[in-house]
Amino acid sequence: MTTPPAAPPAADALSSFHAIIPAGGAGTRLWPLSRRAHPKFLIDLDGSGRSLVQQTWDRLLQIIPAERIHVVTGTAHAAAISEQLPDLQHLLIEPSPRDSMPAIGWAVAVIHAADPGAIVGSFAADHVIGDDAAFAAAVTEAAALAAADLVATIGIAPTHASTAFGYIESGDPLEIDGAPHGHAITTFVEKPDAPTAEHYVQTGRFSWNAGMFVTRTAVLLDHLARLQPTLHAGLVQIAADPESLPRVWPTLTPIAIDHAIAEPASREGAMAVVPGTFTWDDIGDFAALASLRDSDPDTVWIDADGFALSTDGTTIAVVGLTDVVVIRTPDAVLVTRREHAQRVKQVPAALSEAGRDDLV
Amino acid sequence: MTTPPAAPPAADALSSFHAIIPAGGAGTRLWPLSRRAHPKFLIDLDGSGRSLVQQTWDRLLQIIPAERIHVVTGTAHAAAISEQLPDLQHLLIEPSPRDSMPAIGWAVAVIHAADPGAIVGSFAADHVIGDDAAFAAAVTEAAALAAADLVATIGIAPTHASTAFGYIESGDPLEIDGAPHGHAITTFVEKPDAPTAEHYVQTGRFSWNAGMFVTRTAVLLDHLARLQPTLHAGLVQIAADPESLPRVWPTLTPIAIDHAIAEPASREGAMAVVPGTFTWDDIGDFAALASLRDSDPDTVWIDADGFALSTDGTTIAVVGLTDVVVIRTPDAVLVTRREHAQRVKQVPAALSEAGRDDLV
Repeated sequence: MTTPPAAPPAADALSSFHAIIPAGGAGTRLWPLSRRAHPKFLIDLDGSGRSLVQQTWDRLLQIIPAERIHVVTGTAHAAAISEQLPDLQHLLIEPSPRDSMPAIGWAVAVIHAADPGAIVGSFAADHVIGDDAAFAAAVTEAAALAAADLVATIGIAPTHASTAFGYIESGDPLEIDGAPHGHAITTFVEKPDAPTAEHYVQTGRFSWNAGMFVTRTAVLLDHLARLQPTLHAGLVQIAADPESLPRVWPTLTPIAIDHAIAEPASREGAMAVVPGTFTWDDIGDFAALASLRDSDPDTVWIDADGFALSTDGTTIAVVGLTDVVVIRTPDAVLVTRREHAQRVKQVPAALSEAGRDDLV
Repeated sequence: MTTPPAAPPAADALSSFHAIIPAGGAGTRLWPLSRRAHPKFLIDLDGSGRSLVQQTWDRLLQIIPAERIHVVTGTAHAAAISEQLPDLQHLLIEPSPRDSMPAIGWAVAVIHAADPGAIVGSFAADHVIGDDAAFAAAVTEAAALAAADLVATIGIAPTHASTAFGYIESGDPLEIDGAPHGHAITTFVEKPDAPTAEHYVQTGRFSWNAGMFVTRTAVLLDHLARLQPTLHAGLVQIAADPESLPRVWPTLTPIAIDHAIAEPASREGAMAVVPGTFTWDDIGDFAALASLRDSDPDTVWIDADGFALSTDGTTIAVVGLTDVVVIRTPDAVLVTRREHAQRVKQVPAALSEAGRDDLV
C-alpha cells in the first residue's frame, strides 16, 4: 500500500516536453457562433461544457504539468484566454497577427532560452479530439522522434476522402526507439479535389495534416535559421529582450509553419509522422459541426432535416427544407444548406462592408 | 368662413350604421408571429405601427363614430383588445369560441334590441385594406342595398387567380338607389383549385369573399329565425338577458355566417354584392405577408432570396437558399419556403403535442 504508482512508461520521453497552443484564427465560416471578439477557440462548440481551448488545455494537462503549457494569442483575446484558463502561467500576447510561424517560433525561442534541451509540441487551440489516451500515445511517439532530431507531426488516419484538409504522405518506417509507428514524410499536399482525395485515401499512405508539430527547440530554431534567417533573428532577439517586442514583431515575415519549415524540411528528409488513431476535426464549418453534434432536441422538423442550433434557449422550426443549417444566437440568425457551409464566411465579410462590425 | 363643411353625400345611408368586428382566429399559419395569446389581429403585421384590429378600427372611425363600433372577442383577448382600442365602448366577450355566426349574431341581436332600425356591417379584425376611401364608398353602397332589405357583401375584385380565398359569383345588376354597382349574388363557392380559380377570374363575374356582410339587423335576424331557429332563439335570449350568457352560450350551434346565412340566402335571391375596388388581403400565411411588406433591410442575402423578418432587432443572414422564409421572434425561429407557407400551421400543432404550449 505504500508503494507509489509506477511512472507510465512514456514519462521519460515527455520529461522535458513543453506544449505550445497557438490560439488564433477567426473561424468566419462559423458565424454567427464565432465572432472576431469571441472566435472559435473560445467557444464551447461541441456542447461539452468546455471551450475548444479549454479542451486543448485539459488534454495537455493529462501528459504535462500546467507550468509547461504556453499559449500564444492576440491582444484582443488575451483577457478571455486568462479567464478561461485560470491556471495558465505562460501567455504570449502577439501585438498583431503574423501567421503561425512567428507565433509558434516566438514560444519556441522563449522555451529554448530557458531550457535548451526542451522538446516542444504545437497544438491548435480550436480542434476537437475524441480520444485523449490515443492522443497522449501519439504525442509520446512524436517526442521520441523529436529526441532523434526529427521534426515530427501527428497525421490523422483519414476516415473519409475529405477535401477540407491538407494531407501528409508517409514514406519508409523509421525504426526509432519509442516510436514504433514513426515514418518519414515524403510530402505535404494542400487540400485536394475530390478524386485526388479519394486516391490518397485508397493508397493507405496519406494522413490528414492536423498541424501538430513536435520538435526539439534547438532543431526547429536551426531549421528556421537556415530557411528563414531574418525571422529567426527577430524571434531570438525578442526572446532575449522582451522589450524589443513592439519594435521587432511588426518586422517579422508573416508565414505559416507548414510553408516555413514543414514543406522544405520534408524535402530534406528531416520530417517524420506518427499516426493519430483518435478522431479529430478542426470544425472548419457548420457541415463539420453537424457531423460532430446533434441538433437542438426541441427543434421542430416538418418534412425537413438538417442541423439546427440555438444558443439562447429558443426554439427553431423548419418546414419543407432538407439539409438546412439554422444557427441562432442572441443577435443573429444564419440559414444555409450544408453544401454551402464553406461560403458562410461571406456573411461577416458582407456585414463588415455594410458597416455592421458589431456583428462580425 | 362660418359655413360648416357639407356632410358627405353618403352620410344618410350610414346614419344608423353600426359596425361589428369579430376578433377571433388563431392565425396558426403565421407562427411564430401569431400566437394563441397574441393572435394575428393583435399584431402590427404589415409594419404600419398599428395592429390589424387597430387598423380595422381606424378605418371604421372614418365612416361612423366610436359609439357605433362593436367588437366581439374571446375571453383570452378581451384585455388586449381594450388596451389596443382605448376608445372602444362595446366589447362583447364570448365565453368560448362558437364560430362566426354566434359571434356576429350576438352583436346583431344586442344592436337590434337598442335600435331596431339599425344597419350593421361585419368586418374581420385581421384583414389589410389598401384604400380607406374606396372601402367607405363600398360600405355606403352596401348600406343602401341593406336598406332595401338585402344582405349585402363587399366582394373584392380579384387581382389574380388566388386559390386561398372563397369566391362570390355576381348575377344581374340590381338598380337600387345609392348602390349603382350592386348585383345579385348567384352563388358562394369555397376556395377553388387553380384551373377553377383561373376560370373564375376570366369570366369577370367572380369576386373574392372577404367576409364582409352588411344588413339590417331585422333582416338578418329574420333569416336566422328561419334558417337556424334554435341559434336565433338563444341569441335573442342572451341579448334580452345578459345574465343568461354563461348558460345559453355553450348551447349555441357553432357555425360560420357563410353557411348559416349567406349560402342559403343567396339561393333565395336575398343576397347582393358590391365590388370592392380597394386592395385587400386576409394575410393568411407568410406568402401573403411577403407580398405585402419588404424583408428587414439589414438582412444579408448571399446567393439567396425570399422573405426575412426579425421582430427583435436582430440580423438574419441567408446563404445559398432561394425563396426562403425566415421569421425570428424573441423565443423562436421559423424557416420555410414560400411554397410551404400554408403548412406552417403544423408547427404550433407539433409544439402543442410536444407539451410546448408556451410557444403556441
